[in-house]
Amino acid sequence: MDADRVNTHTDARSETIRSATLELAQELGFAKLSIEAVAARAGVGKHTIYRRWPSKGALFLDAVLSSHETILEYPDTGDIVADLREQILAAVELLARPPLDGLFRSLLGEAQQDAAISAALNERFIAPQTQRTIDRLEKARDAGQLSPDLDLELAMSILSGPIYFQFLITAQPLTHDYIDRLLAALFAGLGPRP
Amino acid sequence: MDADRVNTHTDARSETIRSATLELAQELGFAKLSIEAVAARAGVGKHTIYRRWPSKGALFLDAVLSSHETILEYPDTGDIVADLREQILAAVELLARPPLDGLFRSLLGEAQQDAAISAALNERFIAPQTQRTIDRLEKARDAGQLSPDLDLELAMSILSGPIYFQFLITAQPLTHDYIDRLLAALFAGLGPRP
Repeated sequence: MDADRVNTHTDARSETIRSATLELAQELGFAKLSIEAVAARAGVGKHTIYRRWPSKGALFLDAVLSSHETILEYPDTGDIVADLREQILAAVELLARPPLDGLFRSLLGEAQQDAAISAALNERFIAPQTQRTIDRLEKARDAGQLSPDLDLELAMSILSGPIYFQFLITAQPLTHDYIDRLLAALFAGLGPRP
Repeated sequence: MDADRVNTHTDARSETIRSATLELAQELGFAKLSIEAVAARAGVGKHTIYRRWPSKGALFLDAVLSSHETILEYPDTGDIVADLREQILAAVELLARPPLDGLFRSLLGEAQQDAAISAALNERFIAPQTQRTIDRLEKARDAGQLSPDLDLELAMSILSGPIYFQFLITAQPLTHDYIDRLLAALFAGLGPRP
């Protein structure tokens, strides 16, 4: 996928197309979403859409992420457990609850069959989120709030993996209680007490 | 999905259908697999297949799991880290490497769109695997090899979540190094040293 096609287009017409995409995705679900329907709703030609996004998956990914990106910044109150909890809750509220949960699940399903969607998801969402996570944890580690030899490269999969597992595999609800217990268990570690 | 349809059929004709399914899935990929093609390869009628499995996803899930289930038992050498490592490696070798990796990824993608596949996956694979994990960890906890207050209900998502995250989301290779570093980090915990 071209870098250009992954980047956010900021012109007004692109915003109109993204809004139409989100509206229609919520009305119809991801499976029934079509570029034709988005074009009609946005009042543009199909070519206008295909010039900006190579597929309906790429368009939907961009529409979701462009409308909400800033919510997923980490707060920095100086308390790393509280800040992680806040950020995980914000991500769960946005992506794993109505109205977007079914659409996000479909998009992640689509990424299993379409390498371009998987690449765009990583480039647009996972990689920057991983960098934010590392930056916030590095600061906390320097402040003595984390294990001094924490493997920062693994932190994203350790913190996010159980959340995605619950969302995509067991399909159980991501309650506040689950997130609190998860953070407690991850901080304490599985190993015996010294 | 009926319990009966999730259960393993052990008659010879069912075995023939499962073998044909795995062969064809590896030749064609999950997207191009069809009940028609399986019926032709197995020398049975389509109805014979539909009487046993409600969809191609259910059939494929059963074919994969029936052929390999025993590999995913935990060894018990008395060393919990070694045994977890062994079991995770066996699961990764089976499901996240050729020839099955692309098919298993497709199946998990399908589970995002089809609640019956998701339910069957949990009933046939995730729930028993979770119980095996809890049983093995409970024994290790009683032997003093784990934190005495480890939250066993979370153990499956803590141990499996990062593996699925790497497999489904970042699509990075699941190397032995990654698994070793992951287990070390999970055992040590994220929190500061006391």
